[in-house]
Amino acid sequence: MKTAAWGRRPLADCVPELVAAARGDKKATLVIQNVRLVNVVSGEILPGMSIAVKDARIAYVGKDVSHAIGEETQIIDADGKYAAPGLLDGHCHIESTQMTATEFARAVLPLGTTGGFFDAHEISNVLGLDGLRFMLEEARSTPLAAYMQVASCVPSTHPGLETTGAFIGPEEVAEALSWGEDMIGLGEVMNFPGVVYGDDKMIGEIQATLRAGKYADGHFTWKSDDWRLPVYAASGVNGDHECVTAEDVIERVRLGMYAKMRQGSAWHDVAATIKAHTEGGLDTRRMILVTDDRSSESLMNEGHMNFVVRHAIAQGVKPVTAFQMATINTAERFGVSRDIGAIIPGAYADVILLDGNLADVNVVMTIAAGKVVAEHGRMTTEWERYDLPALAFNTVKLGRKLSTDDFAITAPIAVGKAEVRAIEVVENHVETIERQVWVDVVNSTVNLDPASGLCKMAVFERHGKGGGHALGILTGIGFNKPAAIAMTVSHDSHNLTVIGNDDELMARAGNIVADMQGGVVMLTEDGVSEFPLTVGGIMSKEPFETVARQSEGISQALIQAGCPLNNAFMTLSLLALVVIPEIRLSDKGLVRISADGIDIVPLFTGK
Amino acid sequence: MKTAAWGRRPLADCVPELVAAARGDKKATLVIQNVRLVNVVSGEILPGMSIAVKDARIAYVGKDVSHAIGEETQIIDADGKYAAPGLLDGHCHIESTQMTATEFARAVLPLGTTGGFFDAHEISNVLGLDGLRFMLEEARSTPLAAYMQVASCVPSTHPGLETTGAFIGPEEVAEALSWGEDMIGLGEVMNFPGVVYGDDKMIGEIQATLRAGKYADGHFTWKSDDWRLPVYAASGVNGDHECVTAEDVIERVRLGMYAKMRQGSAWHDVAATIKAHTEGGLDTRRMILVTDDRSSESLMNEGHMNFVVRHAIAQGVKPVTAFQMATINTAERFGVSRDIGAIIPGAYADVILLDGNLADVNVVMTIAAGKVVAEHGRMTTEWERYDLPALAFNTVKLGRKLSTDDFAITAPIAVGKAEVRAIEVVENHVETIERQVWVDVVNSTVNLDPASGLCKMAVFERHGKGGGHALGILTGIGFNKPAAIAMTVSHDSHNLTVIGNDDELMARAGNIVADMQGGVVMLTEDGVSEFPLTVGGIMSKEPFETVARQSEGISQALIQAGCPLNNAFMTLSLLALVVIPEIRLSDKGLVRISADGIDIVPLFTGK
Repeated sequence: MKTAAWGRRPLADCVPELVAAARGDKKATLVIQNVRLVNVVSGEILPGMSIAVKDARIAYVGKDVSHAIGEETQIIDADGKYAAPGLLDGHCHIESTQMTATEFARAVLPLGTTGGFFDAHEISNVLGLDGLRFMLEEARSTPLAAYMQVASCVPSTHPGLETTGAFIGPEEVAEALSWGEDMIGLGEVMNFPGVVYGDDKMIGEIQATLRAGKYADGHFTWKSDDWRLPVYAASGVNGDHECVTAEDVIERVRLGMYAKMRQGSAWHDVAATIKAHTEGGLDTRRMILVTDDRSSESLMNEGHMNFVVRHAIAQGVKPVTAFQMATINTAERFGVSRDIGAIIPGAYADVILLDGNLADVNVVMTIAAGKVVAEHGRMTTEWERYDLPALAFNTVKLGRKLSTDDFAITAPIAVGKAEVRAIEVVENHVETIERQVWVDVVNSTVNLDPASGLCKMAVFERHGKGGGHALGILTGIGFNKPAAIAMTVSHDSHNLTVIGNDDELMARAGNIVADMQGGVVMLTEDGVSEFPLTVGGIMSKEPFETVARQSEGISQALIQAGCPLNNAFMTLSLLALVVIPEIRLSDKGLVRISADGIDIVPLFTGK
Repeated sequence: MKTAAWGRRPLADCVPELVAAARGDKKATLVIQNVRLVNVVSGEILPGMSIAVKDARIAYVGKDVSHAIGEETQIIDADGKYAAPGLLDGHCHIESTQMTATEFARAVLPLGTTGGFFDAHEISNVLGLDGLRFMLEEARSTPLAAYMQVASCVPSTHPGLETTGAFIGPEEVAEALSWGEDMIGLGEVMNFPGVVYGDDKMIGEIQATLRAGKYADGHFTWKSDDWRLPVYAASGVNGDHECVTAEDVIERVRLGMYAKMRQGSAWHDVAATIKAHTEGGLDTRRMILVTDDRSSESLMNEGHMNFVVRHAIAQGVKPVTAFQMATINTAERFGVSRDIGAIIPGAYADVILLDGNLADVNVVMTIAAGKVVAEHGRMTTEWERYDLPALAFNTVKLGRKLSTDDFAITAPIAVGKAEVRAIEVVENHVETIERQVWVDVVNSTVNLDPASGLCKMAVFERHGKGGGHALGILTGIGFNKPAAIAMTVSHDSHNLTVIGNDDELMARAGNIVADMQGGVVMLTEDGVSEFPLTVGGIMSKEPFETVARQSEGISQALIQAGCPLNNAFMTLSLLALVVIPEIRLSDKGLVRISADGIDIVPLFTGK
């Protein structure tokens, strides 16, 4: 499935070499001696074990591997450190870090993540299969065991609710899944009402996935006791990360789904969802830890899967069980457990060494595809970087300059007070709340009182498909001075989104973003903070350290403007995501998501 | 994968219908109300549940399925009975029951077995891929979810050690695995020394299996702490049923293998192997219950997987865990857990209802592919029987009549006592013991003392490849009067095997078996007991009730002749199996199996 650079080849091709190395007739390329083995298959910690590696795969695991050592064998004495399988992220959008796949790999490998299941949903919304293809090829060039999913929902529901840069349907799914074994399945099927009510496109994509012998992931946000969850399960979708309560996990697992428990930057679900096991006693084999979306800053400050596993253990999960949830369970869910997710003969040599208590998840060395790639938190290896294709750039096609007029909200009354459906932002949760609030109207135009704490939000189509836009009202942003933030990172269609309390600043911020061909700009009267994202308008071409610093700059600017939200940028970037309750804004208007369906609703209630 | 008769079709093809039925727009064909659901995914027992079935698959599982009920829906009120997934046999040779696949299905469906993973190893030794093909096609005609493996070891090691009727190598494996999704993988790789030491044929077969995306099962009989078990695991073989101790299970699971715990008619391993969990605390997800070989009589008298699950529970396994070991664990091992092994939307409607205590495994109804096929221990449905092809018959090609001369054992001395390597039979275990015993020699010929309890054993090639034969000495048979048993069921090459203490009776018994084109004949001075097996010389074309009665006739005759062994016939039929320690007899001679390898040894020690 991989380029020869990292030597990831199908197990079948390696069998003769592996068996010869295991019995000692060919010598190991790498031996790790004296580890405390975290055996996620048997659920045990085994001291005094050693591991022999032949090229990219593990040839032998046992108490004595001396027969596998030759003159050329690299020997690591682990001195009793824990050796665990490299951590796997069971559901992750690389684009949410604003990094390319190369920089994502450089960021997470030192943290102990050696593989993942990546739904390149964001770039697919901008560039369709062309975007997915370069993400796949770039991921193949890294040391990661990277498996990609084809985005199921481009657009997330249907073109009447938002404008995307591309379209993916059953034929595109079938094509993408033919690209290789590392095209692992269908990305989160967010249009779950479409599935439940038999939408041809959604059903067709699931069928194409099953016919390819691959896996369809879900995204179901109605209550877990909704009678339609089993209907969704009947479609063949059998994984879902939209679990926010223990009951969500329990109901999914009972229906045969893999329940993915998420600890993203902007949603912290594990403390609640893990209770399905710690309090409910549920069999853990179909419980999986994932990140979904993590920002570059939270990767730097907290970590990646190492952080999530540590957090799960802190909730009272036995360490080896928590490791299972980020290794073998994940690999089994995707049918690749003979390649990744366990330290066993035949598997890829993706191994991490951990110091101190296992519960601390203190990764001190990462071995990927049989090579030491990181030590003590730093990459120790380099590789030839993937060249991004020209089509990855110049994707912001607004076609005009924004002006203050673009941000004027016309009211149904000439003057007085009118009630609007405001979008209330909820810290650390992906859901929003629909909140009725009264706004002042002057000259048939909404005039927000600075003391109200309300902001405007505007979404401009930016894929060269007309440049239409819609306006809404936000509460919970907290700006305490004139401020605006503009961004082309705006899930899922990644149109140009501008949020602020000052029309002039909003127009300027939007224009700067358009001029720099994508990114984030935070503007106040004190100055400007820029985060250029020229790859599809959503990823930076800079090294991850630069990405994290620029992202941090935006975060600081938001805080200085009074926004109190944890991971504010990520939370704001989801306000156009028209599949997650309760209410969102797209370029087509205000969208309400409920158990009855997904519909455009008027901004004004009529009161 | 199946004929339309039972409606087993790929999930992808059923998705639109299933989703429509789940939401109630199409009506269920069958509804089972008010069950106590044995949920093997979550590890729970859930009262008050109902199941809606659409054709061959489950459409909905929930507390209320009333929306799925239409005028034509068949409704079963389970009145609180347990509903469990139909039981799966994770490793089974149908031929060991001496039944055809049709009669096997009729025998086990009332016992709650709805599917299995069948290694048609015996018929393949006689007829090669032609034999496998008709077994597959016959299995497809039954209600069972039957998955077949292509035999890996035909011959079991190499032609120098025994003569088989056919040859299967890497090309044959690749061909057989292309026949359909129900060709699930490679049958037990008994030539494990060949794998460990890089035999091209064995490595090639495993590679062909992995390239087809399928599963290779193992058979490793050296000690579990032998340093070469990890070498075997490195080959990609990742399931093994040759576990006889808890340590055997633990070591295999630690290496990522699925450990299959066997309760056959002639070997009773579960009480020991299950301690890996009940005493060792091993994670159970890769522990699987299997039968390997069960006789028709033990199917009738004890049961099939229902007996094995009950037995496991009696060792102290939590009932739901024991059910997992015969349902979801098995399905996951073979990558088919979305089709079988759990009562979840989308899976085949293979469901059993159980009365009384779950621990009693008292199956009162079997539903297979959405249809009630058995109630209260009896089949309630019929189907059009598969017509066996002509090549299945007339396979005993001895080419001559046997005479007493064929049973004379020539000694290296003219007269006196000589020491021989006798094969000691061990009750309820597949292993034999090599035992040095002294025999009398007269006229350069062995003359067995009736009081010694020793028997002769002869194996005659019967596939039309020369008709050569070899002779050996047995201890532990227990005949207390002149007796002989002849059979063409003789693992694995199924040559004509004759055991007895009277050359005249031995010759006569062998000739009767050859004349009736296969089967078993027990002969004493009191009379003859016949069990005709005309299908490949190893299976009966009669209904399973007849098979069981005739098999019982042989067993009774053995007992009357003084043989005290439990399941004596099955034990005797394995004495030519030249891959299981310690010592066996093939048509090529006495074969010793040890950790050093498998070799022909002289009958006489030279003392």
